[in-house]
Amino acid sequence: MTRERVVIVGAGFGGLAAARGLARAPVDVTLIDRCNHHLFQPLLYQVATAGLSPAEIAAPIRSILRDQKNARVVLGNVAGIDRDARQVRLEDATVVPYDRLVVATGARHSYFGRDDWARFAPGIKTIDDATAVRRKVLLALEHAETETDPARRQAFLTFVVIGAGPTGVEMAGAIAELARRSVSRDFRSITPHCSRVYLVEAAERVLGAFPEQLSQKARAAIEQLGVTVLTGNPVEAIAEDHIRVAGREIPTHAVIWAAGVQASPAARWLDAEADRSGRILVRRDLGVPGTSRIYAIGDTAALADEHGRCLPGVAPVAKQQGKHVARQIIERRSIPFRYRDWGNLATIGRHRAVIDMGRLRLSGALAWLLWCTAHIFFLVGFRNRLSVGACWLWNYLTFHRGARLITGGPTPTNQGE
Amino acid sequence: MTRERVVIVGAGFGGLAAARGLARAPVDVTLIDRCNHHLFQPLLYQVATAGLSPAEIAAPIRSILRDQKNARVVLGNVAGIDRDARQVRLEDATVVPYDRLVVATGARHSYFGRDDWARFAPGIKTIDDATAVRRKVLLALEHAETETDPARRQAFLTFVVIGAGPTGVEMAGAIAELARRSVSRDFRSITPHCSRVYLVEAAERVLGAFPEQLSQKARAAIEQLGVTVLTGNPVEAIAEDHIRVAGREIPTHAVIWAAGVQASPAARWLDAEADRSGRILVRRDLGVPGTSRIYAIGDTAALADEHGRCLPGVAPVAKQQGKHVARQIIERRSIPFRYRDWGNLATIGRHRAVIDMGRLRLSGALAWLLWCTAHIFFLVGFRNRLSVGACWLWNYLTFHRGARLITGGPTPTNQGE
Repeated sequence: MTRERVVIVGAGFGGLAAARGLARAPVDVTLIDRCNHHLFQPLLYQVATAGLSPAEIAAPIRSILRDQKNARVVLGNVAGIDRDARQVRLEDATVVPYDRLVVATGARHSYFGRDDWARFAPGIKTIDDATAVRRKVLLALEHAETETDPARRQAFLTFVVIGAGPTGVEMAGAIAELARRSVSRDFRSITPHCSRVYLVEAAERVLGAFPEQLSQKARAAIEQLGVTVLTGNPVEAIAEDHIRVAGREIPTHAVIWAAGVQASPAARWLDAEADRSGRILVRRDLGVPGTSRIYAIGDTAALADEHGRCLPGVAPVAKQQGKHVARQIIERRSIPFRYRDWGNLATIGRHRAVIDMGRLRLSGALAWLLWCTAHIFFLVGFRNRLSVGACWLWNYLTFHRGARLITGGPTPTNQGE
Repeated sequence: MTRERVVIVGAGFGGLAAARGLARAPVDVTLIDRCNHHLFQPLLYQVATAGLSPAEIAAPIRSILRDQKNARVVLGNVAGIDRDARQVRLEDATVVPYDRLVVATGARHSYFGRDDWARFAPGIKTIDDATAVRRKVLLALEHAETETDPARRQAFLTFVVIGAGPTGVEMAGAIAELARRSVSRDFRSITPHCSRVYLVEAAERVLGAFPEQLSQKARAAIEQLGVTVLTGNPVEAIAEDHIRVAGREIPTHAVIWAAGVQASPAARWLDAEADRSGRILVRRDLGVPGTSRIYAIGDTAALADEHGRCLPGVAPVAKQQGKHVARQIIERRSIPFRYRDWGNLATIGRHRAVIDMGRLRLSGALAWLLWCTAHIFFLVGFRNRLSVGACWLWNYLTFHRGARLITGGPTPTNQGE
């Protein structure tokens, strides 16, 4: 009997959990990703704000699966999936045949039909995204230092984060700290109180997925860091040198997008039904309707919980789904997925966080400590944990952001921003 | 009396030493660089071979000079120097007036007139260079893993370093370790003994600046790491998929250039006489002939020692020259520069190095320990020292290279290499 070939596309939290869940199964696992590294996305905003180095939150997929002998890793971009022939086609024309397929290709930013905004308001989903945002933020500070016109200097010192979910809140808090505290002694012309950070949200409150009480605490905490929160106001326009919100024009050269996501084109590859965000409407066992061979998990899948609410696009959902699919493949039967919700966390700046664990709701310093511990614990790879822990301690004690490198792109003075 | 304005162009070892040397002087220092960070270039090959992260060998210039109140830092590209008006012109049209000018703009690679080779054989002088080389090397391994044709696979597993100075020797040793040891357990199709590393040198021996005896030891050590050393053979051709040397064609997709350097265009800016490598022929006091206001130091300057040998392009020369220029500016007199040679170091792989300190010549493990200590000691910034020390220890103990990220550039499978 030949071994079943399980192909997993995407080495995020979901895909990796599926691969690991099959470690002892008599199957051949092929994990395909277009990056060579698994990325710990919840900490990506720290790379974008120069607190951590890329290598500290990313580990080569090969190293993670080094000792799993039934798994091989393929670096490649999916061009399409042939359901009849049971093959994944890669862009370099490689063909990977499967008996079971797990699609875990995640999501990208969505600009709600305004793709022209992408140029001025980059999001952060990949390492390259994060270093580009870091470059943008640090260059704005450099330009502010040499700019002599007060209005133009103020524009360089104005930072706007669009979207007040956990990423947006964390990002705004981190930028406020970077611009106000960490760099204050390094510049001669600009002073900490010159900078302005805006957090713009279309909905009525920040952290909409959290209980209202924690939302309010989070808002108070970021406002205390000096962030101006504009809720109930969808952004109206984004250009190279300003945004418009609530009928008001805010001059800025550094806008960061943390508002919407759009699933990867997996639904198109599979010709499957999708929701508005492009997520595949999966069965309760995470199977793609019309086949028993293909599963979709994580940000690629849309599934409602027992209360009819769509499961959020967070790491725990993807991980549990990956594990669940592995179990079904091993047991060769269909089992409905149930999400075990351990709670929600978001951090705000140096020593504040909010945690929602159902009955247990925390905010403030204790929540922040819990947040740190949880993130370091979940980081893949022992070396990264150690290193991130050391960096945080160092940043915390010194207010110093060590990874403040402007890299990539053309030479700085040729930049438009 | 107005304070003298000292403008320093370039924040490498020389420029930074000059700025720091003026810390207590009653002058206004402006340090101009096109990067926001000072780079510890001697360890750049470790970034290129995934041993260290960029932020571990680079520190923001602003942070380094944070407490030096008479210094300001300007991020900018020099467009030209107007000697009559005593002004440095930047590309963004900013004009920086000077009373004294120190030119410390370093060097770039030189392809000896074959600039078409640059595309296929990148050198490593900047962080972006190093991450590009890292990308090239890691992608070659990825392609080898999926390639089924044996000859083409071998080409992906063949790495060529051109130039056997310290950088070339260190690079070849590090690639041999990366390809043979660090990644061996991570891949399924390729095995450690498949890979080939060539070190190509036009001169008769490796490490030409070292005594012959140490050269021989270094050669033996890198050969023991599995590197094939081809001395006395200038490279004849470099193309996308091969190089030609000694009439023989070697198929490869990863060529790294460590052969020649060319000074920055400072001589042209100043309309000063230069040697073949573009270095300004300075006076014994490091002044540019025809003026008492301008100095050139480090890789930008050509100066012979008392034996008539041109001073090498290494960090200690640049540092001592920077300090020397600062002293002359403070004392307002011309003092001939004398290089104090503390010795030469080069490392080969995990626990070998050669050290030449005149009468004291070391090789092997003790030399390697000395090399590590010296490099960690000279790293700018305490945090970096700690972090690099920890990384090295970790890499040493585990054979693991933690910074193996493929970043930047288009999606991997669209790549030609």
